[in-house]
This record gives sequence, C-alpha cells and structure tokens, in this order.
Amino acid sequence: MAWRGQQVTTRLDSDGTLTVELREQEWQQPTGAMVLVRMEAAPINPSDLGLLFASADTDNAEYSPGRIVARMPEAATRAMAARHGMAMPLGNEGAGTVVAAGDDPAAQALVGKRVACVPGTAYATYALCPAAMCMPVDDSVTAEQAASSFVNPMTALGFVETMRMEGFTGLIHAAAASNLGQMLLRICQKDGIPLVNVVRSSEQAALLTDMGASHVLDMKDPDFVTRLAGAIKQTGAMLGFDPIGGGKMASNMLTAMELAASEGQPFSRYGSSTAKKVYIYGALDLGPTILNRSFGLTWDVGGWLLTPFMAKAGPEVLMRMRGRVMQGLTTTFASHYKARVDLAQMLSKDAVAEYNARRTGEKYLVIP
Amino acid sequence: MAWRGQQVTTRLDSDGTLTVELREQEWQQPTGAMVLVRMEAAPINPSDLGLLFASADTDNAEYSPGRIVARMPEAATRAMAARHGMAMPLGNEGAGTVVAAGDDPAAQALVGKRVACVPGTAYATYALCPAAMCMPVDDSVTAEQAASSFVNPMTALGFVETMRMEGFTGLIHAAAASNLGQMLLRICQKDGIPLVNVVRSSEQAALLTDMGASHVLDMKDPDFVTRLAGAIKQTGAMLGFDPIGGGKMASNMLTAMELAASEGQPFSRYGSSTAKKVYIYGALDLGPTILNRSFGLTWDVGGWLLTPFMAKAGPEVLMRMRGRVMQGLTTTFASHYKARVDLAQMLSKDAVAEYNARRTGEKYLVIP
Repeated sequence: MAWRGQQVTTRLDSDGTLTVELREQEWQQPTGAMVLVRMEAAPINPSDLGLLFASADTDNAEYSPGRIVARMPEAATRAMAARHGMAMPLGNEGAGTVVAAGDDPAAQALVGKRVACVPGTAYATYALCPAAMCMPVDDSVTAEQAASSFVNPMTALGFVETMRMEGFTGLIHAAAASNLGQMLLRICQKDGIPLVNVVRSSEQAALLTDMGASHVLDMKDPDFVTRLAGAIKQTGAMLGFDPIGGGKMASNMLTAMELAASEGQPFSRYGSSTAKKVYIYGALDLGPTILNRSFGLTWDVGGWLLTPFMAKAGPEVLMRMRGRVMQGLTTTFASHYKARVDLAQMLSKDAVAEYNARRTGEKYLVIP
Repeated sequence: MAWRGQQVTTRLDSDGTLTVELREQEWQQPTGAMVLVRMEAAPINPSDLGLLFASADTDNAEYSPGRIVARMPEAATRAMAARHGMAMPLGNEGAGTVVAAGDDPAAQALVGKRVACVPGTAYATYALCPAAMCMPVDDSVTAEQAASSFVNPMTALGFVETMRMEGFTGLIHAAAASNLGQMLLRICQKDGIPLVNVVRSSEQAALLTDMGASHVLDMKDPDFVTRLAGAIKQTGAMLGFDPIGGGKMASNMLTAMELAASEGQPFSRYGSSTAKKVYIYGALDLGPTILNRSFGLTWDVGGWLLTPFMAKAGPEVLMRMRGRVMQGLTTTFASHYKARVDLAQMLSKDAVAEYNARRTGEKYLVIP
C-alpha cells in the first residue's frame, strides 16, 4: 500500500539559487520500528527557518503557487556547500495520527493513536518517524496542543539542567517573551529558580509581569546594563541564554554579571574571578556577535544546541524531562500561535514575510 | 635598617587623569617569610601595561622627567572605579639579589642569592616578595636571563596543560612570533604536540620557520582562513589561544576549525559536532571581539588567565611546571628584548610610544 500527498522541500544550488517548493510525494508502508504519521499540525520554529531559508533574500524572491525562488548570499552559499543540489524535506516536529506501522511491537502499538513526533520532515501530508520519536497523547489533547512538544519544551528544560550541571544557581534569558521564554518562566516558577527575563518592548514586559515574573528588563531601556547588573546582584544569575546571537546581548550580559560580581571588591586588573557564562542558542539576529570584553578574563561564551546537550545528559535525564513535558503539555508547556497556514499558504509571500521575520510572539503553525 | 630607592606607581583619579610617576620610597627590614630583593631586571609584559596605562591616551600625554600625566577614556575610568585615587606600584616579575630576609628559614636561605621573583612591584630599586615566590638561579644565569621566568613560561606551559585537561590534541597560537610564542613552539617541539603558528608578517614567519616550525601562517594572507583550515585538517588542532582579543582572530580560528571538521561530512544545519574552542588571553587589540558565527553551534570562546589556571591545576602540576622552567631558563624559556631602560627612561615619551604599542618582538626590559 502507498499514501500520496505533498511535501515542502528546500534546495540550494551552487549558483546561490534557493528553491523552496511543494512537491507531490508518495510514502510506502513503513518497516521495522518506523511509523507513518498523517501530520495534523507542525510549528515553524527558528531552527526550521535556518534550513528552510537560511539567510536567503525572501523579500525579493519570486513567488508562484507552491514555489519560491530566492537568492542566497555568496558567503552563505559557500558555507553550505554540503547541501548543494539536494531537495531537503524539513519540519522538525509536529503532531498527527499514526496510519501505518512496521512489524516492531513498539511501532504497532501506536497505530491509530494521536502522537507528538519529531520526524524532521513534518511539513508534509505524511511523515515517516521512528516509533521512539513519537509520544502518544491523551484523547483530550488536540494535535495543535501536541505540535510543539519537543523543541521548545526540551530546550527550556535543557537550560535548567545545564545550569545545574555547570554549578550555576540562576538564569538570564533574552527574548524571554517567546513561547520558549514563557515555558522557561513557568518551569523556573515551579522549581524556585531565579530568572531574569530580558525583552524588547513594554508589551512583552507586561505579558511576563502578568504571568508573575519577578525580574523583567527591557533591552531598549537606556539604563539596561545597569539595571541588569542590579537584577543579577539580587538573583546571582551568572548564566545567560541568548537566542539573538548577533549584536551585543551576550556582551551586555557578561558586562552586567561582571558589574554585579565586582561590586564592593578590591580592584583587579583582570576582573572578578566569578564564573560568568552566556550560551548563544539561536540567530534571531544573523549579524556578528560583538563582545566588548569589558568583563575581565573570567568569562565564557559558547553555542548551545539541543542534540549534543541530550547526548551529554543521557537517557535517564531525558526520560524524566520527556515525562514532565507530556504531563504539562496544556499547562507549563503550552504554546501560542499567531496564525495557521496549510502547506500551500506556508509558501505565500505574506506568510513568509511575517514568520521569517522571527519576531517574538509571531509564531506560525502549519496545518498540512 | 631601611633601604632607599625609587618606585614606579600608577594612579587613576575619578576625573580620568592617569598619573604615572617615579617616587622616592623606603623599604623596611622584611619580616617572617618575606625577603627584600634588589631588582636588577624586570620585563614590561602586556599584563603590566594593562595596569600601567590601560587604555589611556599616551600619545597626547604630558611627559616631564619621572612623570606622565595622561587622559583615560570615560568608560574605562568608570570601569576601574575600584582603583581611583590609589598610587599603585607594579611590575609582575623580575630578577635580582636578596639583600635582607625575615626570620623564616626559607627566607633566610635566600640571603645573598640571585633569584627570579614575582613580587608584583618589580619596577623599583627594591621589592618585597614572599620567599615562596622567589626561585634561586645558578651563578651562571644572569639577572636578565632570569627576569622573565614566570609569566611567559608558566603561560606557555599552561596552554599545553589546558589542552591536555580538556581533551584536545593540538594547538593554534596567534601572535606566535612573540617571546611567549617562541617558548610555546619549543615546548611543542619537545613534547611532540602539533602547533599551528599564526603571525602577521613574512619576517615573523621566517623567524619561526627557521626555528623549525612546521605550520606557520600569515594572518594578512588573503587566503588565510582557507590555509588555516588546511593546517587544522593536518594537525587536528581544535584549541586556539589568541592574545589579540579584538577583531576577528577568534572567529577566523573557529571558522577554519569548522571547515576542517565538516569537510567530507553530510550537511548539518547546525554545523559539525566537533568540539572547537578559542581562549582569549590578552588584549593586544583593545577593540571588540567580532564573532561571525559561521561555525555552527558547537563552539566555545572564553577568557584564559594564569592565576585561575594555576588554582585549577593544583600544586603538584605547578611544581612540575616550575621545575621545568628553571631547568630551561637559557634554552626553552629564553626571552629576547628590543631595548633596556632604567626607571626614569621607562617613563620617557619615546620609550612609552614603543613598548606601549605592544608589537611582537619589541619587548622592553627595565634595569632599575
């Protein structure tokens, strides 16, 4: 038996042409521990956009029904030589109903069930997925509620685990009004972890304050760094997570940490000896990271990514994290979407202009 | 009994005035485990310049005999509030003869001996120093040969220890033609550690090649990053040490590491999973660090400083390192100087213009 439907693919050619298109696709009967999921909802996360468009010029692209042709900057085209010519399906996560399964009992057990899944090919009518990457949800949970059950929830919980593994006792989070930021706030509230939330508008600040956040700072405030230092002094938060990447956010966090750490201490030409660290886990700003290094010589900036974190954390920690997510899908780990689009609408100029801007609070959900 | 002489001090006032001056000073009979060293030679290291002038405008300063008055930029003045108003002596290390000692047998044992020492106040006729921070040298070793026995040698050995502690197997070093860089090259040659040397002129490249270096790259070469990637591919050097700090050196190292790590691998939107790290251990360029983040999400940039490294390494490792340095003072750990100045000449406009430019191969030695 075979299933027919459509799938979004992205292809970068060596001349810098990026083609994103909807293709007819056929799925075969899954084998072994694989299942076939009829996709019912899939979010567009920043991590998906990095593959879908990367830094291509979507403003000046050619849009036709089910097809986008855009130019990729030369440096980016060169840097992504390994994907030249390949039409890659995508969509990290989503939710749907299992319509077929391989012989493996774990796969068979999922047939007919609604599952949250991580197929990596979720922007499609159907997706093949290992049974181990599918979690069945209660009948009371909708596909929309289950769609974002992996990337954001595991990332938010991963921040907290990272904090504990590295001996820190509080967190700073930038772009804190995002779906991920709201999850992190609810986790920190439940676990009693001091959290300093950094946002970029008074509306976002109000949203988090209404949720009960104790420390909310606007990065556009002229006294931002000084106020951040004050919040760090109160919370001891010496570990930051920054999804912006470009610009001065990481540098400002380290500067504020150093101000808080050195207050009242005797002068040292090398700065304080307090450990200070910022993880960059996204690229909402694709520009370079600017570190002014006005924070002594005891500091660290690194990349943070879910996959290596999971490898480091190990299966026991991950099982505990997954269990917590599935229990709190409609509460702690609830997501909100600005708009819903089908696969064809996903490739329209208006939709792309909005969701590819990666603005906090403007997440799209794909309903294949 | 008391000893009279002169001492260089640096004072930053809250209005941004930096005063560096030669003062008359009196030293008393040392007590306990302290000794008094008549200083005979002391290098001017970049770490000393950070305290002596920091980012003050020495080009437009007022120079009078034994006195410099310069302006410190406002941001730097604010950042160094903890030192406002204090006339601080300085000079991390040097060599001289012990002329008096406290009652402690370890101190008494050094009387009359020539020692390499780390008093923190070496730019002076005399310096008080704990006996534990003095190492007696053979009669055949001159004060000049013993003057730089601590900062550079322990830093170079510290790089190698850090590499081993963190599981890396090769090193990249920027500004590699410096005294420190030459020491590191000789250490790596002896220990069989792959080392990629980055310099900024063909003269510096020739110097290291003549010393037998296998990989020497000129950062001004238009193909620098590609060539660096090639050298990394050959050596597996995924740990860099950068004393420049400002600009793109750390970013270029990480980009080249990523190119080497991802060559021949399937495309991943998140980059390779190979650990890649750069330590910034100086600020030859006081400008911001620019990271273009074209190197995936598995990377790390941090500050490296000798003192916390030593605390982490522990006494056993340090004893072994110190022993190796004292054995190789005139060979592996030999230093070269461009010029010798006395305390008064050290504060002359011509001398400051040259040694405060922090150019590789232009190190000054103070002969108090």
